[in-house]
Amino acid sequence: MAKFLTNRDENYAQWYNDLVIKAELAENSAVRGCMVIRPYGYAIWEKIQAALDKMFKDTGHVNAYFPLFIPKSFFSKEAKHVEGFAKECAVVTHYRLKNDESGTGIIVDPAAKLEEELIIRPTSETIIWNSYKNWIQSYRDLPILINQWANVVRWEMRTRLFLRTSEFLWQEGHTAHATSEEAIEETERMINVYADFTENFMALPVVKGYKSESERFAGAINTYAIEALMQDGKGLQAGTSHFLGQNFAKAFDVQFTDRTGKLDYVWATSWGVSTRMIGALIMAHSDNHGLVLPPRLAPIQVVIIPIYKNASQLESISVKAGKIKADLEVKGISVKYDDRDTNKPGWKFADYELKGVPVRIAIGPRDIENGTVEIARRDTLEKETIPATGAATRISILLDEIQKNIYRKAAEFKKNNTFYVDEWDEFVKILDNQGGFIMAHWDGTPATEEKIKDETKATIRCIPVNSPEEAGKCIYSGKPSARRVLFARSY
Amino acid sequence: MAKFLTNRDENYAQWYNDLVIKAELAENSAVRGCMVIRPYGYAIWEKIQAALDKMFKDTGHVNAYFPLFIPKSFFSKEAKHVEGFAKECAVVTHYRLKNDESGTGIIVDPAAKLEEELIIRPTSETIIWNSYKNWIQSYRDLPILINQWANVVRWEMRTRLFLRTSEFLWQEGHTAHATSEEAIEETERMINVYADFTENFMALPVVKGYKSESERFAGAINTYAIEALMQDGKGLQAGTSHFLGQNFAKAFDVQFTDRTGKLDYVWATSWGVSTRMIGALIMAHSDNHGLVLPPRLAPIQVVIIPIYKNASQLESISVKAGKIKADLEVKGISVKYDDRDTNKPGWKFADYELKGVPVRIAIGPRDIENGTVEIARRDTLEKETIPATGAATRISILLDEIQKNIYRKAAEFKKNNTFYVDEWDEFVKILDNQGGFIMAHWDGTPATEEKIKDETKATIRCIPVNSPEEAGKCIYSGKPSARRVLFARSY
Repeated sequence: MAKFLTNRDENYAQWYNDLVIKAELAENSAVRGCMVIRPYGYAIWEKIQAALDKMFKDTGHVNAYFPLFIPKSFFSKEAKHVEGFAKECAVVTHYRLKNDESGTGIIVDPAAKLEEELIIRPTSETIIWNSYKNWIQSYRDLPILINQWANVVRWEMRTRLFLRTSEFLWQEGHTAHATSEEAIEETERMINVYADFTENFMALPVVKGYKSESERFAGAINTYAIEALMQDGKGLQAGTSHFLGQNFAKAFDVQFTDRTGKLDYVWATSWGVSTRMIGALIMAHSDNHGLVLPPRLAPIQVVIIPIYKNASQLESISVKAGKIKADLEVKGISVKYDDRDTNKPGWKFADYELKGVPVRIAIGPRDIENGTVEIARRDTLEKETIPATGAATRISILLDEIQKNIYRKAAEFKKNNTFYVDEWDEFVKILDNQGGFIMAHWDGTPATEEKIKDETKATIRCIPVNSPEEAGKCIYSGKPSARRVLFARSY
Repeated sequence: MAKFLTNRDENYAQWYNDLVIKAELAENSAVRGCMVIRPYGYAIWEKIQAALDKMFKDTGHVNAYFPLFIPKSFFSKEAKHVEGFAKECAVVTHYRLKNDESGTGIIVDPAAKLEEELIIRPTSETIIWNSYKNWIQSYRDLPILINQWANVVRWEMRTRLFLRTSEFLWQEGHTAHATSEEAIEETERMINVYADFTENFMALPVVKGYKSESERFAGAINTYAIEALMQDGKGLQAGTSHFLGQNFAKAFDVQFTDRTGKLDYVWATSWGVSTRMIGALIMAHSDNHGLVLPPRLAPIQVVIIPIYKNASQLESISVKAGKIKADLEVKGISVKYDDRDTNKPGWKFADYELKGVPVRIAIGPRDIENGTVEIARRDTLEKETIPATGAATRISILLDEIQKNIYRKAAEFKKNNTFYVDEWDEFVKILDNQGGFIMAHWDGTPATEEKIKDETKATIRCIPVNSPEEAGKCIYSGKPSARRVLFARSY
C-alpha cells in the first residue's frame, strides 16, 4: 500500500493529501472549497467530539443551538469584529427558486429577495450575544456557560482538506460572567482543557500561550492558543480561547444588576476547536505506510485478520477470533474481525496500516495448533507471537503503551526541533533548512512582527505562558526584550 | 407556575407556545423563522440523538458529513425532486462583504458574485448521490449505509417553534443497495426503528403506514411514515423512510457491476427525523402544569429539593440528599440537587413541574427526624412519603412505571380518539368537533383525496401497514375501496 502514497520526505503536502484521500478520511466535493467527511474520518471526529463534550460538561458547560444565519447588520455592531471577520463570508440574498420559462431548469426567483442579506455564520458571537441580551438581567442569571457544535463557513480561496475549508465543523463556547476575573479564569480553564485533550487524546504536545495583538481574534482583549509542531517543521494552531472583555456586551447592550444593585456590562469569553484537529492528528504522527492513530481516538483499535486456505481452517480461526474479540470488547476496546473473502490477508494488512489501526492480530492454522496469535503494533510496525490465552489483557496494556509511545515520539520531535536563537542569520537559516519552533526575543512591536513575517513567512505563534522573564535583544531590531516568544512558519 | 401558562383546553396553540418559551426549550431568534434551541431543549435533543444514533449503529450504519451547499444545477437533475422541493430555499449568491464607502457599515461586495448560485441543503440526496457516484463501481462497494446529523433549511413563511422552522436539525440516512429487495427491506427496517424509538423512548404510540402518491417525498417510489396523535386531535408525522428506487442513481449516473458482471443502476433509500420530534413530545404528553417528559428522554430524571429554615438543617439535609443522589447515579439515573438559596421551595416545585422532571424528592427537617423523604411523580402529580433507606431502588422502579404510564395514557388517548367512520356527515362532524384519527374508505384517486382536503382540511396521513383488507365504499365518492386509510387534520 505504501507505494500508493507519495513519500513523506519528498513531498510532505502531497503525502498529506494522498493520505487523506486514500485512507478515506475526506475528499473534495462538487462545491468549491467544501469537503465531504467520509465515514472513517467522521468516526475520528465523533471520538474527538465525545471526549471534548465530556470535558466541557465536567467543567459545567451545557450545549445549545443558535441560527446558521446572522443578519448582516449584526456584523457592524462590534467595530473590531467587523474589521477582522466580516469579509469572506457566504451571503444569502434570496429565499426561493422557480422553474425557468423554458421549463428545463430552475432559476433564482428575483421576486424573492431578502430585505436584509443573511450571512452564514463564520463564528457566532453576534447572534449569541443578541440572545444573551434577553437572558441576562441580574447576577443571578450568570454565569452562562454554553457550547455549540456547529458548521461554520469562511470563504477560502486556497483550501486543503481538514486544514482549511470553506465549510468546517467545530465547537464554539460562549460564556457570560459577572466579573472580569471570572471571565479570565474561564478563558484559561478552556485553553487548559484543550491542551489536556491534545496531549492526552491526540498524543500531541503543545505550547500554550497568548497571541500577539496582531494575531488576536477580532474583538478579543486577549487570545490564548495552543500550538503544535508538525513533522515538516511547521506549526499548527490547534485551539484558541478568547477573553472578550465587555466588547460584545457593549455592542449588544447586555447589562446586568450586580449584587450591590449596580448596572454593569457582562464579561465574555469564547473558545473553539474544529475539524482542523483531524489535520493536526494526521500530520503529527503518520508515516509512509499511512495513518498512525493514537488508540484513544482510533475508531477501530484492534483488527483481527484470519489467514486460511479452506473453510474448516476459517471455522476454527473464527471461533478463536470471536473469543478474543469478546474478551477485548468487555474491556471497552473496539475490535473489527475482518473475515471478508473478497480481499487477501496481505491486502488487508496494508489497508489497516494505511488506516492507522493501532493493533493488528493475525491468526493462521499454525496459531491454532500452537495456541498463539501474532500481534503487530502500528506505531513501531513490530510483530510478536504471543499465547492466545491472556491475549486480551496483553493487548489492553499494549494499547496504553502505544498511546504513550506516540506521545513520547511527538514530544521528542518537538524538543529536538525547538531552537533558542539569538542571531538573525541563524533564525533565517533554521526556517529555510528544517523549520521547527524558534524561541527568540522580540521587541513587542507590531511593526517588527510584520517585517519578520514579510522576510521569512514566520509569525509569532504565541507568547508562551511558561516563558520565563529573560532580558535580551530583539532578533530583528536589536531593541530590548523581556522574554522570548515562539516563532514558526505555520498552517 | 401553572397560572403563567395559557390553559391547554382553551387555546392549545398558545398553551404550546407558552410552554416552549417558559420551560426554556426554545425561542424565536433575530432571524425570521429560525429558532434558538436553549440548553434545556437541546439536552432533550441530545437524548434523542444518543438513542437514535445507537439504534442506527446497531443496524449497521455509520455517520458522515456532506456539504451544507448544493450547486443549483443539482436540483434540476432529478425531475420529480425539483417539482417537490426546489422552491423555498435559501440561496447564496455572493461570497464577500466589504466596508461601505462612508465607512460606517458593511455591504455585500458586488464583485464577489458566484458563477453558480449555491442552495443551502433542504435535504441532501443530490449532493450525496453525486459523491456516491465516485464511491460505487462494483457490488463489492455495496451496500453503503450512511447517516448524517445536520442542519437543513426550508424557507417557511409561517413558523412554529420545533414544528416548522426555516432552519432545523435532523438526521438523514442515505443508503445504496445492489437490489431493489434489499433497498425495500432497508426502508422498512428504518421506519421500524423510528416506530420503536417513538414508542419506547418518546412513550408515544404511532400508526405506521405508507403515503398516498400525492403525499410522497419528491423523488420517492414509496414513502413510509409514522403518524402520532396530539392531544388536540391533530396528527403529526414523526418520521419518514423513503424507497427511492433507481431515481437518484439515474439522475447522477451511479451504476455498478453486479456479481454476474452486468451493469445496473444502484437502488436507494433515505430516511429522517428532526427536531420536530421535540414538538411531538411536548404536545403529546404535557399538561397545564407544564411539560411531562418520559424518563428515558428527560435531561434531569430526579430533582432533590431541600426544605429548611437554617444552616444546620440544610447541612443534615444535604448529607442525606448527597447519599440518595449517589445511590441514584450508580444506577445510571441523572439527578440534580437544587440547594440554591435564591429561590424558595415552592418556586422550585413549580419550576421543575413546568420543566417536566419525572420525579421530585423533597427533604425537610421532619424527614430527617423520621428517616423519610417525600417523592412526587410528575405524570400523576401524586405524592408519597417513603423511607429514605432503599429510596434509590424504589425511585428506579418508579421511573420505569412513569415511562410505562405515560405511554399507556397516550395509547388510551389514541384508542379513544380513533374512529372507524363510514358516513361523510359523521366524518366532517368528528373533524369539526373533536378531531382524532379517522379510519375510512377511500377510492384511491388523488382527485378524491384533494377534494376531501379542500372541504375538511383533513389529509390521508398514511395507509396503515396493518390495515386489513375490507371491502367498502369511499367516504367521499362512494366508489369501491379495498381497505381503510388514516385521515386526520395535521401539523
